[in-house]
Amino acid sequence: MNFCSQCGAPVALKVPPGETLPRFVCEACQTIHYQNPKIVAGCIPEWEGRILLCRRAIEPRVGLWTFPAGFMEQGETTEQAAARETLEEAQALVEISSLYAVFSLPHVSQVYVIFRGRLRSPEFGVGHESADVQLFSHEQIPWENLAFPVIYETLTRYIQDLGRGRFEVHVGVVPPMGR
Amino acid sequence: MNFCSQCGAPVALKVPPGETLPRFVCEACQTIHYQNPKIVAGCIPEWEGRILLCRRAIEPRVGLWTFPAGFMEQGETTEQAAARETLEEAQALVEISSLYAVFSLPHVSQVYVIFRGRLRSPEFGVGHESADVQLFSHEQIPWENLAFPVIYETLTRYIQDLGRGRFEVHVGVVPPMGR
Repeated sequence: MNFCSQCGAPVALKVPPGETLPRFVCEACQTIHYQNPKIVAGCIPEWEGRILLCRRAIEPRVGLWTFPAGFMEQGETTEQAAARETLEEAQALVEISSLYAVFSLPHVSQVYVIFRGRLRSPEFGVGHESADVQLFSHEQIPWENLAFPVIYETLTRYIQDLGRGRFEVHVGVVPPMGR
Repeated sequence: MNFCSQCGAPVALKVPPGETLPRFVCEACQTIHYQNPKIVAGCIPEWEGRILLCRRAIEPRVGLWTFPAGFMEQGETTEQAAARETLEEAQALVEISSLYAVFSLPHVSQVYVIFRGRLRSPEFGVGHESADVQLFSHEQIPWENLAFPVIYETLTRYIQDLGRGRFEVHVGVVPPMGR
């Protein structure tokens, strides 16, 4: 951040009075510009014992697989965001069934809010950010070709929960790749 | 938003190519400025059957009661943010015990991520955003003087869960006051 989005004057990084962290503060109009983590809302869409995954057509991690997930928009609920991403990336209508995980990724200031969902029908297609969309049985999940550590972490726990027949809400931290 | 935070040129609200929603786009450097919901991380701090609440010393809703909660910072986990807010607002050290609720407030583009926490000791104090901090038994909760609908909603469910001796993770939407 170099300029004030309110008045266009340069900003400086400094600790405002009464605060403890440095913020971008406008030198002209004194507006404090806060920066905050973003929510990535996602969904594991289920259909008769299989789950719907998308192969990414865009960077980062183009060509690798993920469940539908993306940045939440203003004015949405987390459930609406997860269903919208499923429609956009997999052209599939999903009914959000339950919260599955809340994972913090502090190294990129993101929080993943992930739901389980039921496909309303086995109809889906290739959204504009996807190169392929497929239903996978639990044995077919492309573990070697998942796009991000948070996708691997989520699906690992999902398969474990399936195995023991009990789903719980998972909360935790997912570190960067390779740690 | 009036000016590009990258280059200082004016921005225009328009739908970028390949997208469906209007964004602030810089007319000079073409940077797209996304705006996203913010996370409010909070904690219900428990001590021997009582919970710690803070009376707000700042607007909005000055003078009314809340559990510790505030905007998550870059580089934090949700649990760290909830514990930090408890330290800042109630000068109390808390151990985050479990996720309690994820509430969307789409009318203000906020998502509350609320945990249960255990106070490490019955020591607390009045943080700089608080006018008073007290432990309340469940019969003493100041229902008529809670700061926000999301606080009322959370504590209502908490007391219900206590009554039946079983806590679950609550997910839902909290509408604006008076609806």
